[in-house]
Amino acid sequence: MPTLKGKAVIAQSGGPTAVINASAAGVIQGCLGNPDVFTGVYGSLNGILGTLQEEMFDLACEDPNEIERLRRSPASALGSCRHKLKDLQADRADYERILEVFKAHDIRYFFYIGGNDSMDTAAKLGKLARETDYEMIALGVPKTIDNDLACTDHCPGYGSVARYSAISVMESGRDTDALYTHDTCTVHEVMGRNAGWIAASTGLARRNDDEAPHIILFPEVPFVIEKFVQDVQRCMTDYKRCFITCGEGVKTPDGKYLADAGGQFAKDSFGHTQLGGAAGAVRAIVESKVGVKARTNLPGTAQRVAMHFASKTDANEAYLAGQAAVAAAIEGISGKMITLVRNEDSGPYACTTGLANLEDVANGEKMLPPEFINAEGTGITEAFRQYALPLIQGSAPLDFEPDGLPVYTRLKRTLVEKLTPAWG
Amino acid sequence: MPTLKGKAVIAQSGGPTAVINASAAGVIQGCLGNPDVFTGVYGSLNGILGTLQEEMFDLACEDPNEIERLRRSPASALGSCRHKLKDLQADRADYERILEVFKAHDIRYFFYIGGNDSMDTAAKLGKLARETDYEMIALGVPKTIDNDLACTDHCPGYGSVARYSAISVMESGRDTDALYTHDTCTVHEVMGRNAGWIAASTGLARRNDDEAPHIILFPEVPFVIEKFVQDVQRCMTDYKRCFITCGEGVKTPDGKYLADAGGQFAKDSFGHTQLGGAAGAVRAIVESKVGVKARTNLPGTAQRVAMHFASKTDANEAYLAGQAAVAAAIEGISGKMITLVRNEDSGPYACTTGLANLEDVANGEKMLPPEFINAEGTGITEAFRQYALPLIQGSAPLDFEPDGLPVYTRLKRTLVEKLTPAWG
Repeated sequence: MPTLKGKAVIAQSGGPTAVINASAAGVIQGCLGNPDVFTGVYGSLNGILGTLQEEMFDLACEDPNEIERLRRSPASALGSCRHKLKDLQADRADYERILEVFKAHDIRYFFYIGGNDSMDTAAKLGKLARETDYEMIALGVPKTIDNDLACTDHCPGYGSVARYSAISVMESGRDTDALYTHDTCTVHEVMGRNAGWIAASTGLARRNDDEAPHIILFPEVPFVIEKFVQDVQRCMTDYKRCFITCGEGVKTPDGKYLADAGGQFAKDSFGHTQLGGAAGAVRAIVESKVGVKARTNLPGTAQRVAMHFASKTDANEAYLAGQAAVAAAIEGISGKMITLVRNEDSGPYACTTGLANLEDVANGEKMLPPEFINAEGTGITEAFRQYALPLIQGSAPLDFEPDGLPVYTRLKRTLVEKLTPAWG
Repeated sequence: MPTLKGKAVIAQSGGPTAVINASAAGVIQGCLGNPDVFTGVYGSLNGILGTLQEEMFDLACEDPNEIERLRRSPASALGSCRHKLKDLQADRADYERILEVFKAHDIRYFFYIGGNDSMDTAAKLGKLARETDYEMIALGVPKTIDNDLACTDHCPGYGSVARYSAISVMESGRDTDALYTHDTCTVHEVMGRNAGWIAASTGLARRNDDEAPHIILFPEVPFVIEKFVQDVQRCMTDYKRCFITCGEGVKTPDGKYLADAGGQFAKDSFGHTQLGGAAGAVRAIVESKVGVKARTNLPGTAQRVAMHFASKTDANEAYLAGQAAVAAAIEGISGKMITLVRNEDSGPYACTTGLANLEDVANGEKMLPPEFINAEGTGITEAFRQYALPLIQGSAPLDFEPDGLPVYTRLKRTLVEKLTPAWG
């Protein structure tokens, strides 16, 4: 079968990361370097929204140096979205609209860099294309700080948020250590939704028992208030201070998010209402039930795009995943997501790429496995440390401006002419 | 007058910073290097509390390599406190106790690294010593991320928190930019108490009008809700998104902290109670009055000890201030705080040290001056940029462990024998 020729569209979706642009760079450079296959290379503005609205820009018009600098630029340079397409059975309109735009521009390659919703979209789009005999290749490139995608050893984006989260806890743990006579407890909330991968990464900061984090609250371990209070009290006895990492998705035994626990924990020791996510609830519990002052850190979006302390390993693997997607496309492979595959032998860490069915990724979700959580349910195991440490190695390089701060790429994103009627 | 001989005590006080240990290193190395003057060099455990409780440790027993590594270690390695001594007129007991401990150990030099409360303590201690004819030298070394000390061009600690705050806003601003179709507004809360220096530093991230932060809420500018809502709406019109930096000490026109505004702003658009400091109130206002989704970043203590992105200039100046204090002590100077003095000429930035009376620092407070705030009250001026940029230059070096994360010093802090009856 001769190689399919046509344009490629690249889209980024969901929460930005420090290295999703590195994956984009891998795809873009790979496509631009093979003009015999890819007759044009477009970016879809704001994820799949750009394709639905026919807002796409020609990546060949961008400065190649800026494309290269994507490898050192956080967030989503193509624009992102959280637009969830309807189910294919329930409503084909969105998918048919995308195919309409693809056909109008002779787009034959679709690269979606994102999480499992994105893989679901790519899978359904590929399915509809086959059903309607539109020859098209749909491939996924994994991206999520949450590290919860099935079929891959780990996800590009995780190593960097893990590195940043570990250093943040190491440093603010030192702060709590230094000022424990006044600010005795710190609750540091991390992202990760229902998976405890990021929460676990903060455990890498704890080289000695008395160091932070003393307690990790994992979404995988139901939050039992009585046990938690005992754990904090024990920590106070042992170390005179307590540093707690709290996953945003921590749940009470009835399956409710601690962040939504509301009035139950909403008063601190001074009677102030002080809810603010899971950490706010934990803080209120510490102050009211243990009786020590607590403060909260909520790095928020700053954690997922912390390029300034990103993992070099992660940035390189993200780029590799993008390159691998182009190689797979040229081979005519479709309906797959690139995976990261760790060497099985006992030698030094090495990582190559593999392929997984988009459907398998779309329908899976990889929680932190029990062997990575210690027996008490409040810390990590050596097995997790062995898993995670290779992913955070090295400092991703930065380009600095004369003003002393890094320079991050912004693409021109000049939109191509619309060829179809307005949508929606 | 022959040089006073005796032991030196070094104490750290108040909120930790990325570089307060660099100042401590300057003092410790300076004292240890002059054994003809300093017959012993003690650290006071947890600031002035350690002297009150006679919990002091011999810094000569520490590994010199670890003392040197203090220059690359955040937080307060000697331990810190927020113990406020009573007024000298009201109650001399604390001061007399400190002198009792000093006399018992023949401590003749007291170096206090801290903010204006610490300078007040050092000043009063020096005064009582003079009154009671106990020959002693008391010197202050400035430390505060808030940059609000009088008599000095800037404070060690500020350059590093400014650098970290600017990069955090630059990066999470990119996040908001990428995902504005879903998460339209971000409110990033910074420290700085009643002074807007840290809030202003985030303005360094904004190289172009459409970049974050679009709005800075300074403690120096009263928060008027109607104007704020208009500013956000204009930002939404211009950029389709809005990134707001909010100083923790922002106040309403009646002088109340926005963080304490309580129920007035406590409901978000979904009716959830969501207070959490100033940023929580701002977020609630954005959601309820502008009608767009907002999220909050609260880096908390992680910002003030972010050694991993500390300013090399700041770390060097912090060390310099410590060295200068020892030089002043050897000259017999007492009752002064080391200041940082910027060259007045138009050449490249240079910084030397000077001296200010402890009392003048103790009673002063340096707010962000009007010429550093733009006419709209929502951003910085070029004058601020010129002031601040030299302070954030360069990356402070880090030592890495084989696990890929930095190694920060922990001192052994072996306590010296107590020579006085227990206190308190």
